[in-house]
Order: sequence, then C-alpha cells, then structure tokens
Amino acid sequence: MKIDVLSLFPEMFSGVFGQSILKKAQEKDALELRVIDFREFSTNKHRNVDDYPYGGGAGMVLTPQPLFDAVEHLTKEAPVKPRIILLCPQGETFTQSKAEELAEEEHLIFLCGHYEGYDERVREHLVTDEISIGDYVLTGGELGAMVVIDAVGRLLPNVLGKEASHQEDSFSTGLLEHPQYTRPADFRGMKVPDVLMSGNHKNIEIWRKKESLKRTYERRPDLLEKITLTKEEEIWLNEIKDHKTT
Amino acid sequence: MKIDVLSLFPEMFSGVFGQSILKKAQEKDALELRVIDFREFSTNKHRNVDDYPYGGGAGMVLTPQPLFDAVEHLTKEAPVKPRIILLCPQGETFTQSKAEELAEEEHLIFLCGHYEGYDERVREHLVTDEISIGDYVLTGGELGAMVVIDAVGRLLPNVLGKEASHQEDSFSTGLLEHPQYTRPADFRGMKVPDVLMSGNHKNIEIWRKKESLKRTYERRPDLLEKITLTKEEEIWLNEIKDHKTT
Repeated sequence: MKIDVLSLFPEMFSGVFGQSILKKAQEKDALELRVIDFREFSTNKHRNVDDYPYGGGAGMVLTPQPLFDAVEHLTKEAPVKPRIILLCPQGETFTQSKAEELAEEEHLIFLCGHYEGYDERVREHLVTDEISIGDYVLTGGELGAMVVIDAVGRLLPNVLGKEASHQEDSFSTGLLEHPQYTRPADFRGMKVPDVLMSGNHKNIEIWRKKESLKRTYERRPDLLEKITLTKEEEIWLNEIKDHKTT
Repeated sequence: MKIDVLSLFPEMFSGVFGQSILKKAQEKDALELRVIDFREFSTNKHRNVDDYPYGGGAGMVLTPQPLFDAVEHLTKEAPVKPRIILLCPQGETFTQSKAEELAEEEHLIFLCGHYEGYDERVREHLVTDEISIGDYVLTGGELGAMVVIDAVGRLLPNVLGKEASHQEDSFSTGLLEHPQYTRPADFRGMKVPDVLMSGNHKNIEIWRKKESLKRTYERRPDLLEKITLTKEEEIWLNEIKDHKTT
C-alpha cells in the first residue's frame, strides 16, 4: 500500500512513522509512506495557504488551490484511483470496520489541516472520505492521520507478528477483553484469581467469557446492542444484571 | 501543568511533542512534558517488562512491577496527587468534556502499553482513569496519549492564539460546524454561495445556523439528542427533515 500525507507540519510525523509497526511495515515493503508539505504547491507569491472566511468570522480557512494541485499531482502519477481522506471533526467517526475497509485499498491520500478550517469546495469536489477519530478537538488533522494510518498499517499482510495479533480480539468479538494477569502470582499482596492458576482450561474459558461480558455490560453497554449473544451468554448476562441489582 | 508519559517507545513522541501547539505550550511554560522509558524501572535482570498470561492464551502481558515502581517514583516527588491514566480499548471513550476535566489538573501521568495487555492489578490498584480514544485497534497506547495530550494542552491558559480558538466552536455548540469558504470566489467554476458575498450579516448568520443544523442532522443525528434547540432551531430542523423526505 502507498500512503501520502499532505500537511503543513511534516516534522510531526517523524517519531510515529519511524518507529514500531509503521517502521516495520515500511521495512517489509508492505507500506510506502510519504509526507508532503502542501505549502510547496501554493501558487501565491508568499506561499500562503489560507485566507479569511467569506461572510466574516474568526479563524482562517485553507484555500482550495494548494490542496487541489497537490492531490492532482499525486493522482496523476498513480496507477489506481486513490481514496482521498480529509481529517475533520465533521467526518464519519472512525471505527475498526473503516480501518478494515481502507486496508483493502492500494493508495490513500490524507489531507491534514492545522488550526484552519477547510474550504467547502475541498469537501465537495476533492475528497472521497471525511473522517473524525472522535468527539474531541485537536489542533490539526495530523494526529488523526497517524491514528488511521497505524490502525490500517497493522492490518496489512505480514506486518503484525504473532505476538501482537491477539489484540484484535478486543473488537472482533464485539466485547471488551477479559482481565489478564501475569507473574508474579502475588504482587505486594495483590493476587491472581485462583481459577487462572487451576490448570482447568474449561473453567478458565468460562471465567474469561463471563468477565468479558461483565466488563462490557459495566463499561460499554452500547456494544452489547450491536452483537448477537449465544444462549449461554444471554444466561450469563442475566446473572450479571441480577447480581448488580441485588 | 506537568505531564509524564511512560512508554517503551519514547522516540515515538519526538515529532508531536516538538512541533506546533505542544512545542508552544512548553515554550510558554504552560506545560512541562517528559517521556520516560519504564523498562528502566524493571528489576528483572534482563530488564523484561512482560510475561505470558496466567491461564494461557496468545500474546504477552505487562508485568505490574515496572509500572508500579515508575509511577511511585514520579508520585513521590509530586506535590499534588496526579491523575494516572491508562490508554486502552476497554477505557472510557474520550470526549471534549473529559479533555476539559483533565485540563484542570496539575499533574497527569500516562501509561502506554505496546502490543501487550496490562496486568489487571495495574487497572485495579494503580490507575485513576482508563481512556480509549475510539473503537479501533492501535498498536499501542502512545498515539492515544498524544491525542489526549494535544486535546488537553490546547485548553491550557495562554496556549492558543486567537487564530485557533474558533475551532472549539465545533463541539461547544453541540453541532457540527457550517461550511466555510475563502478566496477565490470562483475556483475552476466552483462558486462561493451568494449569501456569503452579500454583506448581509443577519442572512449570513441564519444561513450558517441552518447549514450547521443540516450537516449535524445528516451526519451525526446522535449529537442532536444531546442538546436543547431553540424554538427557531426546531422549526428549521423540521424544515430540513421535511425537505429530505419529499
């Protein structure tokens, strides 16, 4: 996969793109990552990229020209039509299924504004997707792009080793993960539950499923509405609910 | 505010912490940022920080010792009790109101796992908050910590200049922002709406409010359930709904 990022702060990406999974993905040739300062595409003599909003109001708005020209430059040389993704608070909320969808693509282009708003013509005529990583205000789209690229990058073939792949469980079952414990069995008087030391795999499995249900019910009941429980899980869930109310 | 980050990949933070708003916040002495490799606190002779999970299963789990010792080291020297925040998929979903709450604190400590799960005793006995930035799987807690720190950092006194502060509007009104336009008025045949060029401020204000409602209704109807609309806004919203169904 090829990913191009358009940003006015290209140095922001060095730490995240040069370490860990994204470093590994590039070393394994699963991912080609480029960060481009779209100010270079400004035809304005001062290389300005923003201007005051029509109709007045505080803040600046990114002018369409540098973004259109930068994207066209990248698209011209691309053999397949890329997805062009705008990071913004008004976008579709990013989820794991969106990450899986994007991981199937060959070429992604990310547009990151910083402070400024986007000219509406960018939304209407240039981008294919608008994404928000959550309901909070960030200084720019850069962190959002890094988040989406990390989530997508780790799904690419051969990128994740076995040691990490288990973490997907958390969202692929639709439930939150059960508690985990490792050594020591007694840490400053805080002990590991007996069942996990029992060696009885059937009991361990049941304990984990129940804890997973309990944690989801307590913390994210909204997730339970999105999945179909087995008969057994429904009985356990009712036990958990009864226990809470008595 | 003082922020300490515990991570096994401290280099990941350099780009984000050394640029833009977080650089500015540090220069203005509004924020003191440190990243600490908690492997340094491991008493294991190989400096290991993880081990196999009790009860079996794939993946590794972070042992409690290095995290407890690192946090205690940081807390010992702290004049006020810090908030100790774990980034994990099982945490409370991060929102702007959580960012505002954290911005009132004097000291935050972030715990970032990477690949591995956390020993449950860390959740139960060490941390004060568990936060998830969204329903997607990331390689580690580092990007989550950067997102929370950016969202919190920009709220600290004197950090944001006027040019950026308007962006808060997007979530403070509870509605998505209306479209913005800047020069040129005609870009490759794509034109700015007449009303914005009219100079009639009353009409511009009404247009923006309606567009804001329309965009929220179309993209994030869930947000409308969380706010109280004025009588006027309710009438406009009904017009928007009628227009959609006819």
